[in-house]
Amino acid sequence: MINRHYLSMLSNKSVIRELSEYATARGAEIGYENVFDYSLGNPSVPAPPVFAEAALRFLREEDPVALHGYAPTTGIPSVKEKVAASLNRRFGMDYKACHIFPTAGAAGAIAHAVRAVTEPGEEVLVFAPFFPEYYPYINTTGAVLKIVDPDTEAFQINFEDLERKLTPSVGAVLINTPNNPSGAVYTEETLRRLAAVLEERSAAFGKRIFLISDEPYREIVFDGKKVPYTARYYDHTLTCYSFSKSLSIPGERIGYVAVSPACEHADDLVAVFGQISRGIGHNCPSSIVTLAMAESLEETSDLSVYETNMNLLYDTLKELGFTVTRPGGTFYIMPKALEEDAVAFCRKALKYDLILVPADSFCAPGYFRMAYCVETEKVRRSLEAIRRFVREEYGK
Amino acid sequence: MINRHYLSMLSNKSVIRELSEYATARGAEIGYENVFDYSLGNPSVPAPPVFAEAALRFLREEDPVALHGYAPTTGIPSVKEKVAASLNRRFGMDYKACHIFPTAGAAGAIAHAVRAVTEPGEEVLVFAPFFPEYYPYINTTGAVLKIVDPDTEAFQINFEDLERKLTPSVGAVLINTPNNPSGAVYTEETLRRLAAVLEERSAAFGKRIFLISDEPYREIVFDGKKVPYTARYYDHTLTCYSFSKSLSIPGERIGYVAVSPACEHADDLVAVFGQISRGIGHNCPSSIVTLAMAESLEETSDLSVYETNMNLLYDTLKELGFTVTRPGGTFYIMPKALEEDAVAFCRKALKYDLILVPADSFCAPGYFRMAYCVETEKVRRSLEAIRRFVREEYGK
Repeated sequence: MINRHYLSMLSNKSVIRELSEYATARGAEIGYENVFDYSLGNPSVPAPPVFAEAALRFLREEDPVALHGYAPTTGIPSVKEKVAASLNRRFGMDYKACHIFPTAGAAGAIAHAVRAVTEPGEEVLVFAPFFPEYYPYINTTGAVLKIVDPDTEAFQINFEDLERKLTPSVGAVLINTPNNPSGAVYTEETLRRLAAVLEERSAAFGKRIFLISDEPYREIVFDGKKVPYTARYYDHTLTCYSFSKSLSIPGERIGYVAVSPACEHADDLVAVFGQISRGIGHNCPSSIVTLAMAESLEETSDLSVYETNMNLLYDTLKELGFTVTRPGGTFYIMPKALEEDAVAFCRKALKYDLILVPADSFCAPGYFRMAYCVETEKVRRSLEAIRRFVREEYGK
Repeated sequence: MINRHYLSMLSNKSVIRELSEYATARGAEIGYENVFDYSLGNPSVPAPPVFAEAALRFLREEDPVALHGYAPTTGIPSVKEKVAASLNRRFGMDYKACHIFPTAGAAGAIAHAVRAVTEPGEEVLVFAPFFPEYYPYINTTGAVLKIVDPDTEAFQINFEDLERKLTPSVGAVLINTPNNPSGAVYTEETLRRLAAVLEERSAAFGKRIFLISDEPYREIVFDGKKVPYTARYYDHTLTCYSFSKSLSIPGERIGYVAVSPACEHADDLVAVFGQISRGIGHNCPSSIVTLAMAESLEETSDLSVYETNMNLLYDTLKELGFTVTRPGGTFYIMPKALEEDAVAFCRKALKYDLILVPADSFCAPGYFRMAYCVETEKVRRSLEAIRRFVREEYGK
């Protein structure tokens, strides 16, 4: 018989996927160039050539038996070494190869991290608004996702609600900076204060609360700023990274967990990740992808496009009277809808071939998300559609 | 805090891995060419050129944004289509693209299949001797691995014990043909009889018992024979395949589950697999690897080496008086040790730089496994070491 839990998930289709499918179908009717599709976070700029060049070189020059052979359970040592060295150089950390575990993107990294540092039944705190896939990543491990209310001013952390919910039932806290969907980047002040709360409660509860930091947008940051590196602020940090956005290779499923060397049991954690992989039947990522990634650590796609797009959209939305916090990074922006029901708002936008996603599923009802990983030329054309939509539907 | 279950797995190191590490260390002392390492099932022949050529072509010619973009949750449609067509042509099946789900090797396939067709607490029957990684693949899902005693004559199925253990608590039955570690290939007669038992019990219990068929060695078969295709004998079969052995690309982690179109709910099962992937945070395998695999479906590495090696070993072992069933396929052979304690037997073999694996962890105490994915020249040289070992330790 088919497992009832997974069967029931089928009726729970993702709103984002449904809107994206609508956009594709509408594109077939009127030409996809005329659909202003802000639904999906699929990078729109090509991978930097170094990634394909490295893959080509390995395929041409390496002995295929060694190249395509089984990797060790905890990942290819030379790759782990390079990842550690790059993080140390860029963020002043002190990782060794043994602290790095290659994963299938940030998704695989988060799922492993949660399994490693929680017991079934423990809570994992997440901060609204958040990426809805956190539900399956966390709940499938046996841990329980619990939501901390949003700071709707700057989309930093609502510490009052955090302190209320940070009880002895909590095993880990999951943050995402730069943030999907708000675009907010946690400031040094936020991270320091978070670390202090986690230290204080860990001591009070006599148990170590881990911080899982989901950072796939770390390289997409605006105004020439840098994203503060979470693990520098709190010792017990597991940093989850994906190359999907920085290298524009989401289909290749490659990322890592980096275990802060300052953690208790830091040297065991990567071995524990290896055991988790055995359990779920998903071992190391593809060798060729892992090796090519390690040759591309200091490169990114041309990410400046996203800042250009953000400025175009932000300025227009402000001008039209939207309540919106200016994103510090990512390729998302999360304005307040012009009526209370963001689902109704987004439905009306479809008339103008604007595909906007209500942020209800991100736990931010009344808001909507735009993923502006879209050609800039199309963003420019969409501005007129946004103006028309707001004028005709809301008289602004 | 670190999860206690996974932490405890660390002390449970795999015997195979330990022996393989010993072989590597010993190789550093005396030269690896002098260590007769029969421990690990890592293919020893290169991938067929078509695999790398396809990858190179995609990397050079395709638009990187499309090539490396997110794949749909249930896999790349053109790949699914090609896999279905190839299976239909070779095995007379009637798969459509919607019945194929690309996975991270057979490991990912089995773990998904078990999650999809069992409820937590249900039993999954496996047949001794079996690959010990079945324990984590099955038990991590919440299902419970239960062992059917071996047929020690021909390493087919012990139907008497199967009928005893096939109770209403069983959700699925997992077979592996050609078999690791015995090398046995299930005959048509075995599969027919198994199907009849499963049909009869499914009807009696008013629930559908699924058959999960693990077939990564399907293409490594001897004496010009073909492996009977399990799904042709029982409708409710989920076929788990890996390209690790046929294309010698275990590090690339690519395989599939094929859902028999004759299953009830056949059209839902692949969608359920997609939900399982969301849950464990491991979505589709790497796109470039998946696409290159689909161009290599009708090719294999030069697998004849394994038959040559098997014949050399089988003939020598027989001549020395070992009790051993001639493998019908795979690159494993599983003789009976020359003393009751196979662990002691394998320990003595180390003196002769022979790395043999006691089959206790495969649930076949008293036997040992040799993985003869080794250069034929080295197999030839090892025969003298085997003779010496048997003569000096057992006076034969």
